[in-house]
Amino acid sequence: MKKIILLGSTGSIGVQTLEIIKAHPEKFSLEALACGRNISLAAEQIKAFRPAYVSVGRREDVESLKSMIPDDIEVGFGEEGLLTAVRQPADTIVNALMGSVGLTPTLEGMKTGKDIALANKETLVTAGHIVTEEAERSGVKLIPVDSEHSAIYQCLEGNSLSQVDRLILTASGGSFRDLSRNELENVTVEDALNHPNWSMGAKITIDSATMMNKGLEVIEARWLFDMPYEKIDVILHKESMIHSMVEYIDGSVLAHLGSPDMKVPIQYALSLPDRYKVPGSKKLNLWEIGSLHFEKPDYERFKCLKMAFDAGKAGGTAPTVMNAANEVAVEAFLNRQIPFLEIETIIEQALHEHDNKTSPDLETILEADRLTRAKIKKDMNKRL
Amino acid sequence: MKKIILLGSTGSIGVQTLEIIKAHPEKFSLEALACGRNISLAAEQIKAFRPAYVSVGRREDVESLKSMIPDDIEVGFGEEGLLTAVRQPADTIVNALMGSVGLTPTLEGMKTGKDIALANKETLVTAGHIVTEEAERSGVKLIPVDSEHSAIYQCLEGNSLSQVDRLILTASGGSFRDLSRNELENVTVEDALNHPNWSMGAKITIDSATMMNKGLEVIEARWLFDMPYEKIDVILHKESMIHSMVEYIDGSVLAHLGSPDMKVPIQYALSLPDRYKVPGSKKLNLWEIGSLHFEKPDYERFKCLKMAFDAGKAGGTAPTVMNAANEVAVEAFLNRQIPFLEIETIIEQALHEHDNKTSPDLETILEADRLTRAKIKKDMNKRL
Repeated sequence: MKKIILLGSTGSIGVQTLEIIKAHPEKFSLEALACGRNISLAAEQIKAFRPAYVSVGRREDVESLKSMIPDDIEVGFGEEGLLTAVRQPADTIVNALMGSVGLTPTLEGMKTGKDIALANKETLVTAGHIVTEEAERSGVKLIPVDSEHSAIYQCLEGNSLSQVDRLILTASGGSFRDLSRNELENVTVEDALNHPNWSMGAKITIDSATMMNKGLEVIEARWLFDMPYEKIDVILHKESMIHSMVEYIDGSVLAHLGSPDMKVPIQYALSLPDRYKVPGSKKLNLWEIGSLHFEKPDYERFKCLKMAFDAGKAGGTAPTVMNAANEVAVEAFLNRQIPFLEIETIIEQALHEHDNKTSPDLETILEADRLTRAKIKKDMNKRL
Repeated sequence: MKKIILLGSTGSIGVQTLEIIKAHPEKFSLEALACGRNISLAAEQIKAFRPAYVSVGRREDVESLKSMIPDDIEVGFGEEGLLTAVRQPADTIVNALMGSVGLTPTLEGMKTGKDIALANKETLVTAGHIVTEEAERSGVKLIPVDSEHSAIYQCLEGNSLSQVDRLILTASGGSFRDLSRNELENVTVEDALNHPNWSMGAKITIDSATMMNKGLEVIEARWLFDMPYEKIDVILHKESMIHSMVEYIDGSVLAHLGSPDMKVPIQYALSLPDRYKVPGSKKLNLWEIGSLHFEKPDYERFKCLKMAFDAGKAGGTAPTVMNAANEVAVEAFLNRQIPFLEIETIIEQALHEHDNKTSPDLETILEADRLTRAKIKKDMNKRL
């Protein structure tokens, strides 16, 4: 029985993680969960899975949640609540939090000896050097939940990292892959949220449309697999059937394929090296699909991808600033405060204005994150 | 340093094996080789690689070979020569012999503790039950050299066979993949030898055009990976870039891709689990290829594939008879004695007339092989 702590239970990854735990009650149990503001969904989850500890985002939600769930379940809140959650006895923490709030609980979870199934990109993007060092020091595994990194992880099984020539991340190209830059000027939030292949949360669907999503994944891959950026490549593959690939020095390329279903990589992160049937998953049938397509990405067209490679190579606090700027910009786009292409402009400007700090500690990272957000919000409010 | 014995040095696989040994003199050495009738090429190989022992196909070639090579190299011939070759001190035997002559030296090689890199299909097709039992008893590895089985082998690394849902062998469809059965009636030997993707020997190129090649691979896969026929599938994939796939119970499909180059799987069979650069190999670049295509094979169109599944499921001496009939028929086609479609008819009739023997020993297998060949040749001579 693998004991699981789930951070971010009411988001897309969180909900699917619970479906998997439910489908394999003899394999997995839920020990603690953390949610944000969706108290009513969290209450249902808590009643179904009966974790010992629960954390909510805001203090003011504690009492209302308590009124909806059994008395014997302890409820905390905020960062202290997250830290208490990850200190519960368990084997694996699924970190499906959104944004840089995922960083501190990841580190605390590793220090208490738990493997981390990581769906929170920001943890590695902003503090890859700290997190991978802590994983090594604590002797815990960092297991990817993203379909791309899970694919690479599986394609590396039984092979040596030193014999890898290239990690090849596939990218669907998102909602706007067939539009020119001119056509991007007037796209709406609804257009952007209409992803052709994957059903995901709003933030990640926008990141997919800008391809910042892929850029963040490139930086994650650099840390997860200790691979220089020169050995990481991105290929456009609109069917999203090949989830990513590893090219070896002998010319062999190993690829992971499957129907686009996040439950497959989520479950593998919990079950590895074993595999079980995935509830409700559709089998891949290549002769029904007929053909798979590949294109080289245009880095002028997908500026966010280029910026992510550049920020990753610059290192230091640059990825943190890029990520913070992206979060604020995407939120503003989702709130219809800025047009789509301004997401790029905001990130570009934030990186331009930032004075990069090399080998930053956690405090410096969180400070860079905070300052970037504050500066952009201030500038934005001035204009609006 | 891995010490290698090479059986079938002058054929396509043999020549490429020597290229690999030559490219990595610090990794591999050649201890013995066996060839057929191409004495002049063998003499060149012997002078370049200086094996301690050499075997030729026929007694009458021994003296002429001796006159071309250094005196200190021992030369034998025939089956006894092959057996002496495999008894030389070494780590791995590359069995690239053609036809059922490959069977006895495989078994003898295993008994003397050597891993077998197997390019000789007939070994597993005719005596899969005996060979896999001997491999287990001797504690040696049976390593595939075929690109398809090498692909599957690599896609199984780090995974459990019990969690495999399906092995999916890809098939180019061969020289005639776009022709209807009617159009097959008048194809020539030259047409058949013009394989669209792979450069291989004549026999295997014809087998690729009839898809008997894929049928033999299905039977090999059954034995190499201890997988029931119900869990083995074939998919047409005309680009031959995906070399085969493994589908797991969680819906994950792992695939091996690469440019069509036999040196990649040959080298992996010698280097595994390590990988080195492959001499002269071209990297796969999917965005240059643009698209990959997949089709369900039509078992009415490709009758040999259907016969192979049926003979495999029937077991006993049926695969031996099918294989022997195929060898004689392909030779007759290459000698322009029969039209292309008669290859199928000859195999079909041989299987129909055969009285299947279950769990045959080596003697029974070789007898079935001999009788089938004799019978078909007699019938053919009667008609010609």
